[in-house]
Amino acid sequence: MPAPEARRGVFITFEGIDGSGKSTQAKRLAEALVAAGFEVELTREPGGSEGAEQIRSLVLEGDPDRWSPETEILLFTAARRDHLEKRIWPALEAGKVVICDRFADSTRLYQGLRRDGLREQVDRLHDMMIGTEPDVTFVIDLDPALGLSRAKGRQGSEERFEDFGEGMQRRMRAGFLELAQDHPERFILIDGGRPADAVAADVLARALPRLPAPVTS
Amino acid sequence: MPAPEARRGVFITFEGIDGSGKSTQAKRLAEALVAAGFEVELTREPGGSEGAEQIRSLVLEGDPDRWSPETEILLFTAARRDHLEKRIWPALEAGKVVICDRFADSTRLYQGLRRDGLREQVDRLHDMMIGTEPDVTFVIDLDPALGLSRAKGRQGSEERFEDFGEGMQRRMRAGFLELAQDHPERFILIDGGRPADAVAADVLARALPRLPAPVTS
Repeated sequence: MPAPEARRGVFITFEGIDGSGKSTQAKRLAEALVAAGFEVELTREPGGSEGAEQIRSLVLEGDPDRWSPETEILLFTAARRDHLEKRIWPALEAGKVVICDRFADSTRLYQGLRRDGLREQVDRLHDMMIGTEPDVTFVIDLDPALGLSRAKGRQGSEERFEDFGEGMQRRMRAGFLELAQDHPERFILIDGGRPADAVAADVLARALPRLPAPVTS
Repeated sequence: MPAPEARRGVFITFEGIDGSGKSTQAKRLAEALVAAGFEVELTREPGGSEGAEQIRSLVLEGDPDRWSPETEILLFTAARRDHLEKRIWPALEAGKVVICDRFADSTRLYQGLRRDGLREQVDRLHDMMIGTEPDVTFVIDLDPALGLSRAKGRQGSEERFEDFGEGMQRRMRAGFLELAQDHPERFILIDGGRPADAVAADVLARALPRLPAPVTS
């Protein structure tokens, strides 16, 4: 399907370094909005649709060097396109609040830190084949030292994305802060160093003014 | 790996409608050049490298509508990039003659016939992520009625590419003829309506002037 002409729903993404609590906060916001009467679609990247999950498996399984950065960004763009077509665009067209744990900003920063010139390729592929930007992006901001100790405490954190050291996390954080500064109309910075309940209340308070009235039947 | 700075080998592709005999002729040329002392790498698309074959399986297996045309061209571009990096570029850098059964021209025409605007996307993706064009492209030209009857006579012709009717084959043929006319420096039109031996002799005679002297040790 093509991108929807008129987006009736609201597209919210969560970004942040590993261990920042973005996945927890995406889930908490979804629960709070459902309780408030909104129709919500909670999803995540990489993956999010059946086809995108299959592409994700192809990228992440096996030897980490089996794909070049260029092949990898093509595969991730294919996965994102499938996710948009099968899940995000239909939910937005149906007027839902779509909440996505990671989206294109993570890809931009991650690939940009891998090698000079890759971020430009990611951006050009995004403009050409994706196009859709979130209405609101929450960056859950956290000191990388704290994020790493949180991430290490988790079970099953097997993704390659989560395999960076503190230096890489510092550069990712700086990248998120720079994106937030460059696009204040889209980004909302959230202090992730507080207890999860406090962060969730903050996120909800900042999200509600960006949403239409909930559906009541 | 990046694209080689200086291409020492020669990159030859074979294109044509289904049943035109392009796969047979690619193989025949490879055999003749090996016999003449050239180092030859014979390959094919879609596929051609381990990663590209895995992507190809992901695209071609299952419900034909599971991927949109946009997702499909991203996946095929990823497969082509892997094929170039792992097999075509290294062979060209080593000075070999690379012979590939189908390459980007098939994708251009096929996607362009699926829907308006797709060929432009294929071309832009190609320019951005592939870049490499063949030195010589043989179009094995054949009347589609004859090509279809040949293709139907084959076993194991299970690919989706081969599932078109005669109308589609006519448009593909017209597309190949137009490409050949627009790029006479790269394309060589071959009459595929003759016996395979005659076609093979013609292809070899037209290929040899485009090649350096064979390696002799």
